[in-house]
Amino acid sequence: MPSIEPTWHAVVEKEAARFARRVEASGVKVPVATTDALNVIKVPLEAGVLLPDELEITGSSIEGLLAKLSRGEWSAEQVTRAFCRRALLAHQLTNCLTNVFFERAVERAKLLDAEFARTGKPTGPLHGLPISLKNQVDVEGEQMDLCYVGWVGRVAKKNAVVVDCLLKQGAVLYCHTNMPQALMSGETVCNLHGRTVNPHNRALSAGGSSGGEGALIAMRGSILGVGSDIGGSVRIPCAFNGLYGLRPSYNRMPYGGSSNSMEGFEAVHSVLGPMTVSVDGLKVFFKAVLDAEPWRYDPVALHMPWSEPAYELAEHGGGKALCFGFNWHNGLAKPDPPFLRAMEKLKEALLAPGHIVVDYSPPDAATGATLLTSLFVADGGEDIKRECALSGEPVLGGVLVGMAPPPHLATYDYWQLCLERRKWVKGQLDAWEATKDMTGTGRPIDAVVAPPAPYPSFRHGDRQDIFYTGLCNICDYPSAVFPVTAVDPALDVKGEPHAFASAFDKLNYERYDPEVYRDAPVALQVYARKGEDEATIRFAEICAAALEASR
Amino acid sequence: MPSIEPTWHAVVEKEAARFARRVEASGVKVPVATTDALNVIKVPLEAGVLLPDELEITGSSIEGLLAKLSRGEWSAEQVTRAFCRRALLAHQLTNCLTNVFFERAVERAKLLDAEFARTGKPTGPLHGLPISLKNQVDVEGEQMDLCYVGWVGRVAKKNAVVVDCLLKQGAVLYCHTNMPQALMSGETVCNLHGRTVNPHNRALSAGGSSGGEGALIAMRGSILGVGSDIGGSVRIPCAFNGLYGLRPSYNRMPYGGSSNSMEGFEAVHSVLGPMTVSVDGLKVFFKAVLDAEPWRYDPVALHMPWSEPAYELAEHGGGKALCFGFNWHNGLAKPDPPFLRAMEKLKEALLAPGHIVVDYSPPDAATGATLLTSLFVADGGEDIKRECALSGEPVLGGVLVGMAPPPHLATYDYWQLCLERRKWVKGQLDAWEATKDMTGTGRPIDAVVAPPAPYPSFRHGDRQDIFYTGLCNICDYPSAVFPVTAVDPALDVKGEPHAFASAFDKLNYERYDPEVYRDAPVALQVYARKGEDEATIRFAEICAAALEASR
Repeated sequence: MPSIEPTWHAVVEKEAARFARRVEASGVKVPVATTDALNVIKVPLEAGVLLPDELEITGSSIEGLLAKLSRGEWSAEQVTRAFCRRALLAHQLTNCLTNVFFERAVERAKLLDAEFARTGKPTGPLHGLPISLKNQVDVEGEQMDLCYVGWVGRVAKKNAVVVDCLLKQGAVLYCHTNMPQALMSGETVCNLHGRTVNPHNRALSAGGSSGGEGALIAMRGSILGVGSDIGGSVRIPCAFNGLYGLRPSYNRMPYGGSSNSMEGFEAVHSVLGPMTVSVDGLKVFFKAVLDAEPWRYDPVALHMPWSEPAYELAEHGGGKALCFGFNWHNGLAKPDPPFLRAMEKLKEALLAPGHIVVDYSPPDAATGATLLTSLFVADGGEDIKRECALSGEPVLGGVLVGMAPPPHLATYDYWQLCLERRKWVKGQLDAWEATKDMTGTGRPIDAVVAPPAPYPSFRHGDRQDIFYTGLCNICDYPSAVFPVTAVDPALDVKGEPHAFASAFDKLNYERYDPEVYRDAPVALQVYARKGEDEATIRFAEICAAALEASR
Repeated sequence: MPSIEPTWHAVVEKEAARFARRVEASGVKVPVATTDALNVIKVPLEAGVLLPDELEITGSSIEGLLAKLSRGEWSAEQVTRAFCRRALLAHQLTNCLTNVFFERAVERAKLLDAEFARTGKPTGPLHGLPISLKNQVDVEGEQMDLCYVGWVGRVAKKNAVVVDCLLKQGAVLYCHTNMPQALMSGETVCNLHGRTVNPHNRALSAGGSSGGEGALIAMRGSILGVGSDIGGSVRIPCAFNGLYGLRPSYNRMPYGGSSNSMEGFEAVHSVLGPMTVSVDGLKVFFKAVLDAEPWRYDPVALHMPWSEPAYELAEHGGGKALCFGFNWHNGLAKPDPPFLRAMEKLKEALLAPGHIVVDYSPPDAATGATLLTSLFVADGGEDIKRECALSGEPVLGGVLVGMAPPPHLATYDYWQLCLERRKWVKGQLDAWEATKDMTGTGRPIDAVVAPPAPYPSFRHGDRQDIFYTGLCNICDYPSAVFPVTAVDPALDVKGEPHAFASAFDKLNYERYDPEVYRDAPVALQVYARKGEDEATIRFAEICAAALEASR
């Protein structure tokens, strides 16, 4: 009898075997971690799995690790080997990796060590720092499957521009991480590499689309990774996994040479951004990439070097008595109870050192949310259908699950949508500028604080609403997320039903269960105006410091 | 018998009457200038037409005029009245104006004078400077017809952002100028306002699409105007009329609130830029607009303030021993003989103070030219057809005359075109970067010098080829044009036929006749890489100074 399995299943099996061979060939080993626990965050700390120095290395902050590397206290090889082992462990528990190139990483680390021995100097500001990459960031000679079954076997001919920038600054690259089909989902599941789960609670989503990074970094199999964000794909998995992350403005970070779905869609730019264990990682990454002058290699990258005055908040009174606009509820989906607690906590923390907090709601979120979705599907899903047709793998739907099949627009109608979007974004800018009269600082609100989603996470396959993050994508607001707390069933009890703004709002209320969401990290985002990336990084540092001080 | 005239003709007549009434109501008068001369540049200088002080005012350089205004030596009212009169004279000779709001301008000037009398200080860096506007830059309360018959009677409800920026900096706005239907042509003719002719030689095109500005400024009915450029629309009319002009990078100048054809088309951004009589006008305009912080009012304007280090060429060795790449011929259409003379002249002028000149040809211009045109017509001309259908006016065709009717693409196919374009632009960047090995400066070529067109102008209605300018639009290279010489039949004799690269190349060769093109200005452009606007302004100043010194 012939097999009735679809042929693409065979490709998936072959790919799994390739991955296993690659691990085997690298010589990196960890004991198989088996556990039924939902929360596996502390598994790596358990006796005997990792060596004490490996735990110390992988437990570092970004600046802490870089300091030891740049002084030669830890060798790049030692650090790289530690992260390779912890990454493999993380993968066993969350299914976060799609590809490993550990042996290349170790070779690279040895070269950096040799150069350090020769010159006594680090190679760059990222000397010896292992950085993980979302499975769309091309590394020359490595498979670039973009998580499509039909792409298996494609090998990147060149490094992505961001890869060259990171290498120039001394980084070590060692693995690719999982993402959803077509990158268009706030959770991480694809036919080729399967589903990545949340290490804080494996019954919950790791978020997406950079969910492989999210789970890996939460497990400290990496402490700095490269994600991408077109609707929240850096921020959602950072939020779900208790990490810091940055969505930069369009074209500040070089996207050139990375692979992507829906290429040629330029109305809303996907952007690359850092995902990291400590807030210092945001500036370290962003500045290192800019200092490598990406505009010389990426034709659409902006020629905007790192601005120290912008980082020092020169246009925001030097950072004293900042006014934060708190968006408690976007009018579309009421955030779950833990966010109220997180917002209150942050508010108190910011008021203490003399900052100002006012309520602020961006107007007409409903129109913005519709526009963003309409732009995403203006091709009627043609791009995704074609990529899936290469192998016969099924289209999974991502954020669009539950939507009617969208029409494929003619170019003229697409342009009208782009025009509508521009008008809507102008309304957002005017509303922001008009806050000048309510802050007492003489300036409009310096930054907005909002939940990154109406939920801290969700059960695998649940419906999503991405407009808390998507607002920043359609407006091109740089936005950083930072962890505030975690779901605590004792504190975050379910509220009474409210007047539901939408079917999703009702669904979200109904599915909230603090027992189910137990231990899920609760994060907030802070965002500024288009182009204020340096200021956004500083705002995130200020929020993190205020939270730390209020503990 | 009923009239067989199409109904839109009546609207055109009504509009002409409105214009005449508006002039009448302003009280501004000049004697009717009738002449059969082709070259009318010097008509305003003829005895009795304008008063000596009006000639002195309107004959100023930008910085010269601003200096006298800021010291109160000339009042804003006096200056404004002088430009209103000379503008009206220019209009009689070239048909350059579409709307006048002289009485509002005089009122505004009086207010500035009163404020000056009260405070002893100018209102801003543009205090009292009359600035003319292309007929797409909205002025609250004034008709915004965009040169479409079907738009007559529409009144702008708000100022364009650039208008607010200019007013904030002290400017006086007094007129709108002609442009071609849909702004998509390198000459200036529309059904509503007719054709603008070249004041240097009225048998020739004033260029386009900002041709009304071009003719007005050449006649010194304005010394600084706002044009726009999506394929060369600032640079072509500047070149044809002997002016200085700048095409800034995407979104550095605020386009918000200006009207446009093909709105929502964002693959190649139209940009606003200055057109002016003296090279100092480029920096004056660009810096004044940026200093007004346009990003606070235009949601897509980049948050990139004026950079003095970039202007001082910090990334180009401080401006000493610059290396210019000379593109003598783009491989698609050989420039007419006067350009060879202009290029040689500039080369010599740049070598004298120690700069370096190498030959440089951007690769694969043919693909770029096809991509640019394909992007422009991706909607199959739907947008233009709809606007024309409002009144029944005929579609004129612009740059597309001679092309087969383009298909209306589906969004997916449009995205593929955008993707192809990105790949092509990456090739351009790589080629530029690779020049590092041939300059001897350790840097790639600092800037490229090229003709702005293969012709100095052309007979009305002639076929066009816009890729000398269009290359900068598709690559987003900031580019400045500056005059070098004028067609001289004694010097610019027709050459022998060459191996023609295309049908247009042959046509262009055949139609070249130095007697017909007599007196047409011959300009060059200098362009730098994306985002290097300040450097481009400086490069233009360096070229202008070198030419001046070599005289």
